[in-house]
Amino acid sequence: MEHKDWVRRELRKLSLSLGFRYTPLKEVENRLARLRTGMEKQGIEGLLVIQKMNFYYLSGTTQDGLLFVPLDGEPLLMIKRELERARGESPMKDVVPLKSSREIPSLIRTHGGKVPSVLGLELDILPVRDYFKFQGFFPGAQFTDASSILGDARKIKSLFEIDLMRKAGEIGTKVYQEAKEILKEGMTEIEFGGLLEAAAKKHGHEGLLRVRSLNYEAYTWHILSGLTGGIVSQSDSPMGGLGLSPAFPVGGSLKVMNAREPILVDFGTCFHGYQADETRMFSIGKMNPKFIDAYKACKEIHDAILEGTRPGANCETLFLKTLPLAEKLGYKDSFLGPPLLQTHFIGHGIGLELNELPFLAQGQSYPLEEGMTFAVEPKIVFPGEGSVGIENTVVVTKDGCEVLTPAGQEIFQV
Amino acid sequence: MEHKDWVRRELRKLSLSLGFRYTPLKEVENRLARLRTGMEKQGIEGLLVIQKMNFYYLSGTTQDGLLFVPLDGEPLLMIKRELERARGESPMKDVVPLKSSREIPSLIRTHGGKVPSVLGLELDILPVRDYFKFQGFFPGAQFTDASSILGDARKIKSLFEIDLMRKAGEIGTKVYQEAKEILKEGMTEIEFGGLLEAAAKKHGHEGLLRVRSLNYEAYTWHILSGLTGGIVSQSDSPMGGLGLSPAFPVGGSLKVMNAREPILVDFGTCFHGYQADETRMFSIGKMNPKFIDAYKACKEIHDAILEGTRPGANCETLFLKTLPLAEKLGYKDSFLGPPLLQTHFIGHGIGLELNELPFLAQGQSYPLEEGMTFAVEPKIVFPGEGSVGIENTVVVTKDGCEVLTPAGQEIFQV
Repeated sequence: MEHKDWVRRELRKLSLSLGFRYTPLKEVENRLARLRTGMEKQGIEGLLVIQKMNFYYLSGTTQDGLLFVPLDGEPLLMIKRELERARGESPMKDVVPLKSSREIPSLIRTHGGKVPSVLGLELDILPVRDYFKFQGFFPGAQFTDASSILGDARKIKSLFEIDLMRKAGEIGTKVYQEAKEILKEGMTEIEFGGLLEAAAKKHGHEGLLRVRSLNYEAYTWHILSGLTGGIVSQSDSPMGGLGLSPAFPVGGSLKVMNAREPILVDFGTCFHGYQADETRMFSIGKMNPKFIDAYKACKEIHDAILEGTRPGANCETLFLKTLPLAEKLGYKDSFLGPPLLQTHFIGHGIGLELNELPFLAQGQSYPLEEGMTFAVEPKIVFPGEGSVGIENTVVVTKDGCEVLTPAGQEIFQV
Repeated sequence: MEHKDWVRRELRKLSLSLGFRYTPLKEVENRLARLRTGMEKQGIEGLLVIQKMNFYYLSGTTQDGLLFVPLDGEPLLMIKRELERARGESPMKDVVPLKSSREIPSLIRTHGGKVPSVLGLELDILPVRDYFKFQGFFPGAQFTDASSILGDARKIKSLFEIDLMRKAGEIGTKVYQEAKEILKEGMTEIEFGGLLEAAAKKHGHEGLLRVRSLNYEAYTWHILSGLTGGIVSQSDSPMGGLGLSPAFPVGGSLKVMNAREPILVDFGTCFHGYQADETRMFSIGKMNPKFIDAYKACKEIHDAILEGTRPGANCETLFLKTLPLAEKLGYKDSFLGPPLLQTHFIGHGIGLELNELPFLAQGQSYPLEEGMTFAVEPKIVFPGEGSVGIENTVVVTKDGCEVLTPAGQEIFQV
């Protein structure tokens, strides 16, 4: 049988029977409308969308290709591989084959479009070599950075998106329940982490937590026990753990987890590309009281932020308010990392990527809006000893927020 | 305790006790020497290494930072986070803190270096926005693409590197052994995949298979059973499987694995950043004979390539020879994918990334050299039915090759 025929006849049926959800046309139209408001303001006549998550957001597919969005008229979805799958996944009307990027201008013309004189590109992430190629393909065009209008369009989530994030959060809740059965004394951090990931995947977790960056990676979950929880690593995070080697110096390690140590489990789950990020504490036997107290402080700070979360609340202010509170609670020098290594954020936007708008952080003075989603993560770190924290993903509602990661917030003692 | 003090006193001891291996100074010196030969040929006075795997290759650390390599004189390792860990991990002499990339020129001067007038950058992967920033930091400097000299330096592996890849292969062998105990009728593909990953992590697998690309990702392992094995996806691979959603349309799915179906397990393992890639076939009960026959053909093609692998053998020729062989065996229209979707390579270089030099592929007319490592993967695909294949990672030796993935090559029947 030809692949094309099989895909046309059978693939959608099979996919739907296994729970696939496709992005509706109305959803894509709303997203495009928001994007075009930004394009118009910035004087962009046409936008070439390349990066996988922007591409998925606007087209509904992650097959290999590029999306051309003119300011007016029909977008053109150009697919390198695999065309028939993209046609089944995307609600877009014009889905055409693309052999090489050099064909883009002629494809635009063939499909009734106009080659733009001001072209938007994702310069925050597009490699220089590709940029030079596009300069050759679009001679005379002015190129401009469309990263921020794409980020702005994505920062407000629709009900469709929030539902996918809620589903990711539900997977997390199931895994934290099962974790109590999985955790055993004498297990290594990475063994525990691997089994948690396996549990999550069984429930439909997609295994990758995407980050928008050249070098920041979607690495494996953080399982930090006792002293490894006190280790800072390369990421912009209060701690990072030991990891497995100098090539992976973050997350779970081959260290055995011991009784009474604080065991910090920080992991995200992903459903249809949408992520929920969550941290809970575990212990084998009763946790050392020093860490129980610090966890209570994290919980208090966490609750204070959620209390202040509503449309109009200023993101920087929400962050700055946590500092005197941590000091009052006695954790000035361990809140968000050890001295000199403390991070300057308490929350990060989340959706298709782990580092989206908004950031509850120093220098991020803008208001929360209804439909924004972010993870709040107060953490306390003691070098040489361990760390504690709590993290939840929330969506800003009309008059407050909804927690999308509803797992119990007690210390999980086994 | 200060983090710095704890790291200096304790971290290396802990890491070594858990099996960390650090890149020796001699190793880094050899790599730099090879790189500088390329720099000299291309007239590059200084090279700024940013991308994580190039950075690790030359410095021995993956802490967040940049490496400046002058054509002559001491390299300068500049670290944003975490400095003390980088000092413990890298054998380099000059490891200094970096607050912002704009400080780079002054740091070079302070440490006795000369700001280069011809600066090499990794233009294959460096984002345009960063490129523009560097133009501001190095006014008047000429920028040039150093991607290919970095790739050329990395393509020949040292004994130290081959040993790490051998270790990755050993992890794979253990997992394939355990897989026979894990696989059960009625399990979904993704559940099986999750448990295999958990098994691998327990043995030290690092969980990410790095790829050098803007959009190609290190997604989860491919577990394809029956008809999902016949589905082509967005990657440049003979098949890709169904995946979990339009956001992850590759690899294992929620499809239940059935008796007699071909179950293709394609996964890589990673040890200290070095990867080994491997494919084996499984079945629950006796596999349908059509697929047993096709597997035998894959095995024959695989053996023919290994037979021809030695220094001096031409990479394109090795690929081209497989086409008449597949035709003779009766698989002209299913070898390396279905008609119109067939891929044009039979092997890909592997090491720190899954897409390194050499490529055994159309248009890649250059000789194999001793110390090159690549994965060979003949596959046969029947849309709507399933696929089979075998894959091993090998290193080119003085007069042939050594297989780094020595798991048994029989069909694993449970």
